[in-house]
Amino acid sequence: MVKLQGFQTLANVDKALKDWLNAWPVKKPQHVVLSLTSVESICGRVLAEDVIALNDLPCFDRSAMDGYAIRYRDSMNASQSCPVKLVIVNADCKVDVEQAKQVWTGNPLPKGADAVVMMEHTVCNGNTITIHSPLTPGVNVIRRGEDVKKGQLVAKEGTRITPYIVGLTAALGYTSLKVYQKPIVALIATGNEIVNVGTQTAGEHQIFDSNKLVLSAMCQELGAETINFGIANDNLEDITEKIRQALKVADALITTGGTSIGGLDLVPDAVNSVGKPGVIAHGLALRPAMPTGVAVLNDKPVILLSGNPVASIIGFEVFGRPAVCRLLGLNKTDQRLTLKAVLSRKVSGVLGRKTYVRVLVKLDRKGELLVEPVSAKGSSSMSTMTKSNGYIVIPENREGLREGETVLVQMFDNIENKQEENVVNVS
Amino acid sequence: MVKLQGFQTLANVDKALKDWLNAWPVKKPQHVVLSLTSVESICGRVLAEDVIALNDLPCFDRSAMDGYAIRYRDSMNASQSCPVKLVIVNADCKVDVEQAKQVWTGNPLPKGADAVVMMEHTVCNGNTITIHSPLTPGVNVIRRGEDVKKGQLVAKEGTRITPYIVGLTAALGYTSLKVYQKPIVALIATGNEIVNVGTQTAGEHQIFDSNKLVLSAMCQELGAETINFGIANDNLEDITEKIRQALKVADALITTGGTSIGGLDLVPDAVNSVGKPGVIAHGLALRPAMPTGVAVLNDKPVILLSGNPVASIIGFEVFGRPAVCRLLGLNKTDQRLTLKAVLSRKVSGVLGRKTYVRVLVKLDRKGELLVEPVSAKGSSSMSTMTKSNGYIVIPENREGLREGETVLVQMFDNIENKQEENVVNVS
Repeated sequence: MVKLQGFQTLANVDKALKDWLNAWPVKKPQHVVLSLTSVESICGRVLAEDVIALNDLPCFDRSAMDGYAIRYRDSMNASQSCPVKLVIVNADCKVDVEQAKQVWTGNPLPKGADAVVMMEHTVCNGNTITIHSPLTPGVNVIRRGEDVKKGQLVAKEGTRITPYIVGLTAALGYTSLKVYQKPIVALIATGNEIVNVGTQTAGEHQIFDSNKLVLSAMCQELGAETINFGIANDNLEDITEKIRQALKVADALITTGGTSIGGLDLVPDAVNSVGKPGVIAHGLALRPAMPTGVAVLNDKPVILLSGNPVASIIGFEVFGRPAVCRLLGLNKTDQRLTLKAVLSRKVSGVLGRKTYVRVLVKLDRKGELLVEPVSAKGSSSMSTMTKSNGYIVIPENREGLREGETVLVQMFDNIENKQEENVVNVS
Repeated sequence: MVKLQGFQTLANVDKALKDWLNAWPVKKPQHVVLSLTSVESICGRVLAEDVIALNDLPCFDRSAMDGYAIRYRDSMNASQSCPVKLVIVNADCKVDVEQAKQVWTGNPLPKGADAVVMMEHTVCNGNTITIHSPLTPGVNVIRRGEDVKKGQLVAKEGTRITPYIVGLTAALGYTSLKVYQKPIVALIATGNEIVNVGTQTAGEHQIFDSNKLVLSAMCQELGAETINFGIANDNLEDITEKIRQALKVADALITTGGTSIGGLDLVPDAVNSVGKPGVIAHGLALRPAMPTGVAVLNDKPVILLSGNPVASIIGFEVFGRPAVCRLLGLNKTDQRLTLKAVLSRKVSGVLGRKTYVRVLVKLDRKGELLVEPVSAKGSSSMSTMTKSNGYIVIPENREGLREGETVLVQMFDNIENKQEENVVNVS
C-alpha cells in the first residue's frame, strides 16, 4: 500500500522542461480589440498583430527650435563683418527669397523654408532680422518621417504592450490595438490539513492555503487570469473530480501539494487517471521543488507543485513562467530582469541538482552591486522570499559557488539602494 | 511681448528636485482595507501598517520528510552491526520510549518525538522498524516558529505588497491588510495643434495627444490613478482654468507642452497666476527635457513637462517618479532596476547638463551584458523608447562616456536575451 522509497531517479530540469513544452501544442490565443485610451487595460497585454506605421512621424517638417524659418541659401554669405538681413513675414504659408518667418518649437516649417535659425542667434530690428553666420540645410528642422517612416514595423505581434508602444501607436493615428485574450489558469490545492484564507479559521495542525494566493498573484503578474478550484481532500476521487472540472474551463492547471511519494501523495495518480499522456516528468533534479511534476491533459499543460511554499514558487518559476508566457501568445518567455554581480559569501548546492538560491542584491554607497545569499534551512521558509529580491542558480555540475564569484541574478523585486535612501523623505 | 532669448540660466537637476520635494509636505495618504484573496487588487499596493506575526510560523513542529517520528535518544546506540528496533504506533497523539510513528512531509510531529528518521533509512518489518545509525535531536523536523516567530515584523509600512507578502501574511492568519489609497494625478495637455486620441482626427499640422497616454500609463504603473483634464488651447485663461479645476480633485498635476520660452509657452505664467509658491525651477540642466519646470500649488506638486514625447518621459522619470512614490506612501522611491554593464560604443553628452541616453541592453550568448546606445537626433523621436530597454545618465561633469566603460543602467523593459530565444517556441 505504502511506497517506502524516495524518487528512484530525478529528471534533469532542462530536459523535462523541453520535453513537456514539446508535449502540448503552441496555439495563438483568440484576440480582442482594446482602445488605446484605456491605458490601464491595454498596458501589459500582448499584441496580436504587427503594427505598421500608417503615416510618417512626424507627418510634416517641424521646427526643432524657437527661431526663424528661412531658406538656408540666403544665409550662405553671412558673417560677423557682413551679416545678412531678412524680412520677417507673417503669412502662414510660405517663406520666399530673403524672407524669414518666426516659428516656435514644434511648429510646421513654412513652405519654401529649409532651415531654422535659433532666436538667440539673430538680431531683430522691427520687421527684419540679421544673421551673422551661415546655416546648413535642414538645421534645426525635424524632417517628416524622421522618427518613423510610413509602412515601417513599429511593434511586433507577440510583444508586450508598454507605455511607449501606446504612445507611439497613438502618435501614428491608431486608436485601438488587437491583443490576445488572457489565458485562464486553474488552481487546485490538495491536503486534508489545508483551510481557506478568509473564510475558515485554522484549527490545531491546520494551515492556510496561502500557496494558491501566491501562485495566483504570480500568474496575474504575467498577465493570465486565474480561477480558484478550491481545496481537494487527500483522496483520489476528490482530486480527480476537481482536475476534470478545471480542465473544462481553463487553459492550464496548477495543483499544489500531494506530489511527493508518500502515502497521501495522490496527485500524480489522479492526473494519470484523467487522460493521456498524463505525467511527463515527476521528481526533478531541482532544489528546492524536487517533488515537482509536469503533465499534459487534453493538450493542456498541468503543473504539479509541491505544497511547500518556496518549492511551489520555484517550481512555478521554472515551469509555470514559460508555460504561461506561451499561453499569453508572447514570442518569448518574459525573463526576470537579469543582472551580474559579485557574491558576498559562498553558497552550497548539491552536485547533480539545479539549485535555486534566494539572494538580496544591494547597491552600496560606492555604486557596487553585491549579492548576499538569504539563508534558510528548508524549502518551507516563506520569509526568505520577502527578505530577498532575486535568485541565483547553481548548475547541476557545481557543488556550490565561491565567495567573490560573479553570478547572474534573476530579480523579482527592487534592489536595495543605499545611495538613494533619503531621496523621498528629504524634509 | 515676445521673449527673444533662451533660458538665461539652467537649474541643476538634483538641486531642483531637492528644493521642490522640500516645498510640499509629506503626508501619509488615507488607508483602505483590502482582502488578501483579491490578489489582483492588493498586489502592488502600499502597506499602510507594520505587519506583525500573529503566530509562530509554522505554528507546530512538523516533519520535513516522509519517515518515522521517534525519540532521538532511542537511536543513540544504533549501528550497522547493532541496529535498534522500534515499535510502530498508530495513535495520533504520542510517541513513547522505543516507539515510532509514521509521518509524511508536513505532518505535525507527535508528542514525545523529537526527530524524524527518513523512510529510506529504515527497514520495516510488520509493526516494527529497525534503524542502523543514530539521529541528532531535531533532525528532519521543522520547528514551530522556524520561519517566523510570533510578534516579529514581517512587512513594513510603506512597502509595496508583493505576491510573497500576500503569501506570508495569509500563512500567518491574516485575511486582509491596510493599504494606502491611490493618489490621483491630473493630466493637462496644452497646445492649439493637439487633438484627442480616439475621438478626433488629425488635420494637416495637427498631432495626437499621445504624451498624456504615456504619462497616464507611467503613473498607473507606479500605482497612481490618473484623470484626463483634456487639452488646453494656447491661451492663459484656458490653461489657468484647467489648472484650477484639476487642483480641486487631484493630489498632483502634470502638464505637457507650453513650457519653453517661446511666445506661446504660457504654462509657467498660468501656474504662477494660480497661487504661491508657483514655479520653483524652470529650465533645467537636463538633456532631453531642458524646458521642464516644477512648481507647487495648494501644497500639491505640479510638473510642467515638455511637449516633446521623449522629453516628457525623461522629465517624468526625474521628477514624476519620486513625487508619485511619495504620494503613494512608499518609504522610498521605487527605483528602476539598476544593472551594471559595459558600453558597446562611446556616447556624447553636453558638459554642464545631466544627459539621459536610451540604451538597449543585451545578454549575449556568452552570458555577457552589453549596453548599446540607441541613436536619435532629438528628443522628439518616440521610436527610440520602443527600441530601447533602459537608460544611462551622463553626469554634468562629463562630456560623454567611453566605449568599454562600465555604466549603471536603469531598466524599463526586459533584457534582450540571446541565450533564451527559443525556449518557448521549441516545437
